[in-house]
Amino acid sequence: MHRVPYNDLYEALRRAMLRLGLAEDRAALSARLFAETTRDGVYTHGLNRFPRFAAMVRNGSIDVNAAATRTAAFGALERWDGHRGVGNLNAFAAMQNTIALAKQHGIAAVALANTNHWMRGGTYGWLAAEAGMFAMCWSNTLPNLPAWGTAVPTVGNNPLVIAIPRAEGHVVLDMAMSQFSYGTLAAYSKRNAPLPVPGGFDAMGNLTTDAAAIEATQRALPVGYWKGSGLSLVLDMMAAMLSGGLATHELGLDPMREAGQSQIFLAIDPANVTQAGELARIADGVIEHLHGTAPLDPTRPLRYPGEQTIRLREENLRLGVPVDPDVWHQISELIS
Amino acid sequence: MHRVPYNDLYEALRRAMLRLGLAEDRAALSARLFAETTRDGVYTHGLNRFPRFAAMVRNGSIDVNAAATRTAAFGALERWDGHRGVGNLNAFAAMQNTIALAKQHGIAAVALANTNHWMRGGTYGWLAAEAGMFAMCWSNTLPNLPAWGTAVPTVGNNPLVIAIPRAEGHVVLDMAMSQFSYGTLAAYSKRNAPLPVPGGFDAMGNLTTDAAAIEATQRALPVGYWKGSGLSLVLDMMAAMLSGGLATHELGLDPMREAGQSQIFLAIDPANVTQAGELARIADGVIEHLHGTAPLDPTRPLRYPGEQTIRLREENLRLGVPVDPDVWHQISELIS
Repeated sequence: MHRVPYNDLYEALRRAMLRLGLAEDRAALSARLFAETTRDGVYTHGLNRFPRFAAMVRNGSIDVNAAATRTAAFGALERWDGHRGVGNLNAFAAMQNTIALAKQHGIAAVALANTNHWMRGGTYGWLAAEAGMFAMCWSNTLPNLPAWGTAVPTVGNNPLVIAIPRAEGHVVLDMAMSQFSYGTLAAYSKRNAPLPVPGGFDAMGNLTTDAAAIEATQRALPVGYWKGSGLSLVLDMMAAMLSGGLATHELGLDPMREAGQSQIFLAIDPANVTQAGELARIADGVIEHLHGTAPLDPTRPLRYPGEQTIRLREENLRLGVPVDPDVWHQISELIS
Repeated sequence: MHRVPYNDLYEALRRAMLRLGLAEDRAALSARLFAETTRDGVYTHGLNRFPRFAAMVRNGSIDVNAAATRTAAFGALERWDGHRGVGNLNAFAAMQNTIALAKQHGIAAVALANTNHWMRGGTYGWLAAEAGMFAMCWSNTLPNLPAWGTAVPTVGNNPLVIAIPRAEGHVVLDMAMSQFSYGTLAAYSKRNAPLPVPGGFDAMGNLTTDAAAIEATQRALPVGYWKGSGLSLVLDMMAAMLSGGLATHELGLDPMREAGQSQIFLAIDPANVTQAGELARIADGVIEHLHGTAPLDPTRPLRYPGEQTIRLREENLRLGVPVDPDVWHQISELIS
């Protein structure tokens, strides 16, 4: 494994963003969000996603100069238009605004239309948790998942993020509606290993742990079968209806031209309705109970969502951030 | 199947509620919510749940005279205490208040502590959708589901409700975090039929479709394995922390004394940020796409969450509401 210091990773991404035409401050922020994603161990959506991001800037799917704007507002609810700008910058601006609104109103939401892939959804959950807030946010995606009862990709794998602020370590869930991402399926099929649980259907229409068979049929499995299928549908409807933007079925089928997503950012500021020490007491009680529960495998204690992130972040800052040598070479060429 | 006119069901429940000591108006509302649940085809949480409700009034878990009260408020966010009163009355009051707050602020939430089982969660989603609002609400429960990685019941099956207003038929998702409820497992084991998909673990620790084996181990499966397990944990934390109430691990293990749940009610009023006709156009587009997708089984077209409810409601109003003869007899005895 090749490791590079975090600052080298950030600086390479920042210079690459400038080459793609982003203004100084926007290049710096977008690069930081990409670099932090890799630093936190979400390798699929950080540096490794940059070549695809660059290609989508070049094919016109992403407008590097467009900034999100407010198009409607009422109380603690706002509607924004992302103008097909840089996905992580649009989402960051939307969540920052949501946090500011929640400080005023206790709870707030921004519905963002016409944006682009937000990369790691967890980014916006961590942002809210760092501000002491609870958050829920989600994005729709192109149709990449058959709804329950069909073999045709109909719904999106619509990532859902829920964040809980906690001094001892924020709890941040970041889950897509498919049991496994196509990235994970590819990793298993490459090393010819079975999935730990069934992840989709083979050509005979049977549930299988054979990742290559699922890649061939493109019939990935929604989490909880009909349940994740229904959850995906309602998240898509809320995002598209509240933002006035596109729904999954309108987002086309080409991942290289997936643009115009709809997203929801929701934050709750507990500061004015809770008592001092109360949040930490309740949160720590839940986590202590989880950690105190006997695991099936004594070497694998129970973990809360985000616990692994904190460990990987610390390790990667200490030892250097792991990078894919090919991608690192590509970005070095771009900025040389 | 025994069917009774809806009004007879409602009237029997109303008189039974009066016998349990509820005041006139509270008896009428609680009975209506129970009767509507059976009318809508959610048989497990309507009339059939009444004997258990009555037993929990008698054993002191439910205080029929307690009404929920506001304990803290800031902008669009409020905290309420349910004082261990009647679960469906507390939840109804909380959601009504949330709807009123959302009209003022665009979005609002009430966190309700110290309540009791809300019966059908979908009730509160339908209530918001009828008011033209989007809603999300959830409840924690006692630990009835092993978290991923343990055989010990650690998390709750925490039902989550998401509602989308739509003139042609509201879309209302009402899902628990277990793949199957214990009620469903019992129905399959009673007729010795295999579950359609694995629903938990047998005594050997293997995933199984044998409902009786899962009833024996009490190792039901979270939806999406580790994903539903994580989702259950964060919903519990949000509900307990925001309400200042009990978390799943504090709710004991006896279903007959499960009291003090924490719940979240959240509503979004789209009226002031959307344009006329826009919501219906987007929602109908998603539903038309779903309905137009080729099903695997031509006799089973794709359905949206809540679609079946509308059909059953109409049928049960027309033909009479199906009742379990034993339970119907019990309630008739109680009120005679």
